[in-house]
Amino acid sequence: MTPTDVDGAGVQRPGELVISGCTVLVHDDQGAVGFEEDAAVVVRDGTVAEVTRAEAVAGRVAGEWIDGRGQVALPGLINCHTHAPMVALRGLAEDLPIEEWFNDVVWPVESNLSEKDVELGARLACAEMIRGGVTCFADHYFAMDAVARVVAECGMRALLGEAFFSSQGPQGRERSLEFALRHHGGAGGRITTCLAPHAPYTVDDGDLAATAGLAREHGLPVHLHAAENRDQTETSLARHGVTPVEVLERTGILDTEVLIAHGTGIVERDLPVLERAGGRVAVASAPRGYMKFAWPGTTPVRALRELGIPVGLATDGAASNNSLDVWESMALTSLVQKSAEGDPRWLTSRQALHHATLQSAEAVGLGDSIGSIAPGRRADIVLVDLTGPHTQPVHDLAATLVHSARASDVRTTIVDGRVLMRDRELLTIDVPAVVRELGERLPALVERGHGRRIQDYDT
Amino acid sequence: MTPTDVDGAGVQRPGELVISGCTVLVHDDQGAVGFEEDAAVVVRDGTVAEVTRAEAVAGRVAGEWIDGRGQVALPGLINCHTHAPMVALRGLAEDLPIEEWFNDVVWPVESNLSEKDVELGARLACAEMIRGGVTCFADHYFAMDAVARVVAECGMRALLGEAFFSSQGPQGRERSLEFALRHHGGAGGRITTCLAPHAPYTVDDGDLAATAGLAREHGLPVHLHAAENRDQTETSLARHGVTPVEVLERTGILDTEVLIAHGTGIVERDLPVLERAGGRVAVASAPRGYMKFAWPGTTPVRALRELGIPVGLATDGAASNNSLDVWESMALTSLVQKSAEGDPRWLTSRQALHHATLQSAEAVGLGDSIGSIAPGRRADIVLVDLTGPHTQPVHDLAATLVHSARASDVRTTIVDGRVLMRDRELLTIDVPAVVRELGERLPALVERGHGRRIQDYDT
Repeated sequence: MTPTDVDGAGVQRPGELVISGCTVLVHDDQGAVGFEEDAAVVVRDGTVAEVTRAEAVAGRVAGEWIDGRGQVALPGLINCHTHAPMVALRGLAEDLPIEEWFNDVVWPVESNLSEKDVELGARLACAEMIRGGVTCFADHYFAMDAVARVVAECGMRALLGEAFFSSQGPQGRERSLEFALRHHGGAGGRITTCLAPHAPYTVDDGDLAATAGLAREHGLPVHLHAAENRDQTETSLARHGVTPVEVLERTGILDTEVLIAHGTGIVERDLPVLERAGGRVAVASAPRGYMKFAWPGTTPVRALRELGIPVGLATDGAASNNSLDVWESMALTSLVQKSAEGDPRWLTSRQALHHATLQSAEAVGLGDSIGSIAPGRRADIVLVDLTGPHTQPVHDLAATLVHSARASDVRTTIVDGRVLMRDRELLTIDVPAVVRELGERLPALVERGHGRRIQDYDT
Repeated sequence: MTPTDVDGAGVQRPGELVISGCTVLVHDDQGAVGFEEDAAVVVRDGTVAEVTRAEAVAGRVAGEWIDGRGQVALPGLINCHTHAPMVALRGLAEDLPIEEWFNDVVWPVESNLSEKDVELGARLACAEMIRGGVTCFADHYFAMDAVARVVAECGMRALLGEAFFSSQGPQGRERSLEFALRHHGGAGGRITTCLAPHAPYTVDDGDLAATAGLAREHGLPVHLHAAENRDQTETSLARHGVTPVEVLERTGILDTEVLIAHGTGIVERDLPVLERAGGRVAVASAPRGYMKFAWPGTTPVRALRELGIPVGLATDGAASNNSLDVWESMALTSLVQKSAEGDPRWLTSRQALHHATLQSAEAVGLGDSIGSIAPGRRADIVLVDLTGPHTQPVHDLAATLVHSARASDVRTTIVDGRVLMRDRELLTIDVPAVVRELGERLPALVERGHGRRIQDYDT
C-alpha cells in the first residue's frame, strides 16, 4: 500500500496521513490518561503507525498532512447507546414523563416510520456526530439496513443491531439475527453487529433465552435496555420477584457479551450478579435524559467501576436527549456523578476522559482496536481547537477538554484514517439536502391520528 | 440622529439597523414567551423601534442591514452573577471541595492579582461572553476599575460592584461605594453599579447594616453571595441562631434592591422572609458549579417562583464553572430543576427562556430596559443560527433553543444597537493578543509559595 514508505526525511509516502504539531491524548500501560505535547501522529492504511515527536516528522512528504498546532488529538468519541434516526423526532415530545413520552408520542409516531425516514434521520445524525467529534456509535433501532447504508457511505464506524419486541413473535428475533449476520464486518470492517432485544419489559424470558442462545451460537454480542430506571426495577420485583438484571442472568443474556443501556435502576443486589458477568458486561450511561425525565437516580458508575465493569458514554436518541452531543455527555457524567456521590473528588476530568476513550471502546466491543491513539489501533482521531476564548488559558488540559471545550471545538474528524470533516466542513454528508428531504416527510411521519402504536410502555 | 427617518420604503435611514427575515422571540402582555416568524427588527439610536413583518421593511435602505434568514433573534443573554476576571484561573483548582478550592488555591492566588491581570481576565471573559450571546453581566470582583474600562471598550452592558470583606475594615465598604458612585451610568449608560459585600460569612452584621444604609441613601442595589450552600446555612444557624437570609433581613439588606447569588442553602423558614422582600429581591442561579462542588441541593427555583421572586441565569466565575456559557446554564437549569423537583413537566423550555430573558433582566435591575425585543427596549439582541444538523429538524423552537442549540450557534451579538460580533467574528476584542499577554503573566499570578490569602473560608 505504501511502496515508498521507508524511514528518513524527504521521502515520499503517498499512503500516509501525518498530523503534526498537536498535543496527543495518550494512555500509559495501566490505561491512565496523559498528554504528549509537540507530538505527531503517523497513520498508514487506516491504522496508527507512530505517535512521535513533531520534529521527527519534519520534512516528510506524506500523502496527506494536517497542521495540528494549537489543537489536541483525541481518540474519536464513541456514542455507546443511541437511536440515530430518532433525530427526526428531536423536540417532538417535551417535558413529559417517560410513559407519556413513549405511549402518546414516540411509539405512535414510530408506527409511521419508513426505511426512507430512517435513512434520512441516520444521515442527519451522522452529520451531527461527525461535527461533534464522534467517530463510532452503537445504534439500536428499526429498519437498520438503512442505517448500515448510511454508515458505509458517510465513513463512520458503528455497532448496529436490529431492535425487536416479543410482540413481533419469533420473527423479530430472527430478523435481528439475520441483520447481524448479513452486516457483520461490513463497510470495510467499520460495521460490527449485535442482537438487539428491546428490554426485559418488552421481550419475554423465553425470547431473551433464545436470543442468548443465538448470541453464543454465532459469537454475537447483545445490546439492550435494562434497569433503565428505578420504577422498572421495582415493577419487575413486584411482578416477577427478580430485578431486570437478574432476568438477564437467568435467561443467559449475561453469559454473552452484553451492553446494557442506562442501568439507573441497578440496585445493590444486582452488583454481585454483574460482577459474575465481569469481562463480558458493560453499561452505557446517558445522563442528560435521566435528568430530563426526572428519574430519581443515575447510572451507578462508581459501584460499576469498583467491579471493573466499563461504563461508556452515550446520548440515547435525540427524541429524549435533544442532541447526540457526546461531549456534553462527558461533562454531564462528571457533574452528575460528583453530585450523586456527594464527592467533588470523584470522577475527575481524567476519569471522564478514560470513560470517553478506553471504557467506551470496550463497551462497544472494540477495546482492542479503537479508544486510544497508539500504534496498531485504527486511526479514529479528532482534532480539537483550544484557541477560543472559552478554552483559554489552559492550566489543566484534561479539565479544559471536559469542562470548557465544546463539541463545536472539534475541527477535524478522522475514521480509519479517512478525513470525514476538515476545518468543520463535512466531506461525506450534504446537510441542507438531508434537512430539505426530511422536512418534506415530517408531516406524514409525526401524524398520530391513526391511533396505532408499535408497542405499549407498561413495565 | 436620524434626520431622514420617515415612513415608507426606499427612504434612506442612515441611523437605522434592520434585522430582517428572522424569527423573533417575543413576550406577550403577561410576559409569556412566543415567537414571530418572518419578522424584522428595526433599531434606532440603540433602541428597538419596531418588531414587524419582514415584508414591511422590504426595500428600506437602512444604515446597517442584517439578513436574519434561518436565524432566531433573542434578547441577549444576561449572566446574572460572575467574576469575569477569574477566567485567568480557569481549570486551576479542579475536583476539590469548596473549602480547599478557596483556601488552598483561589484566595492565595487572588492575593497576587494586579489591576492588569484583572483587565486581561475581564477582556478574555467578555470575548467568551460575546461569542456565547451574552450581552450583559453582573460582575462582583476586585480592581473593578479595570473591568469598567473593558466594558466601555468592548461594548457590553454590565452591573458592576467592587467586592469587599470586613477584614479590610471600613475602607472596603467605602471603596465599594466610591466605585459605585463614580461609575454609575458610565460607558454611555451601559454600566450600572451596586454595592458588593462578599457574603454574610465574610462581612459582619455591622458592616452589612452600614452597607444597607449606604444603599438606601444613594439609591444603589446590593449584590452579594448568601446561603450559597446548606453547610453555610447550618453553620449560620449553629453560630448565630439565624440563617444567612435572616441575617440579610435583620441587617436591612433586604430593605434594599438586592441580588443574591446562589441560594442553594435557602431553607423553608427563609421563604416568608424573602416574600416580605418581594419586588426588591432576586436570586441568580449557576447550577453547574453546585454539581461540580457536589453540594446537596440547588437553588429552589420553584419555591422562589411561587413567591414571584425572579431567578436569573448565571455562570459564577470560570475558576469553578470552567466557562461563562449562559447557554449551558439555561439548559442545566431546566435539567437540574426537573431532576430536583422530580417533575419532568416543571421548568419547560419556555420557562427556561423566561428565566433567561425577563427574569434575568429584572435580576440585574434592568427589567424596564432589556430582556425583551420590544419597542422602547435597548437593542441587546443575538442571532442564533439553527441550520446546523444538531438543531434540525425544529418541532418545538423553544426546546431547540434550550436543549439543542449551543453558545457556538450564536452568529451575531448586538448591544445598544452596536454589532459586537458579526458572523462569529469579534469586532471589539483581539483574543490572540489577550491570550498572549495573559499567558506571560500567569506564572506570577498562580504562585502560591508566599503562603498569603486574601481571606479565609470558614463559614
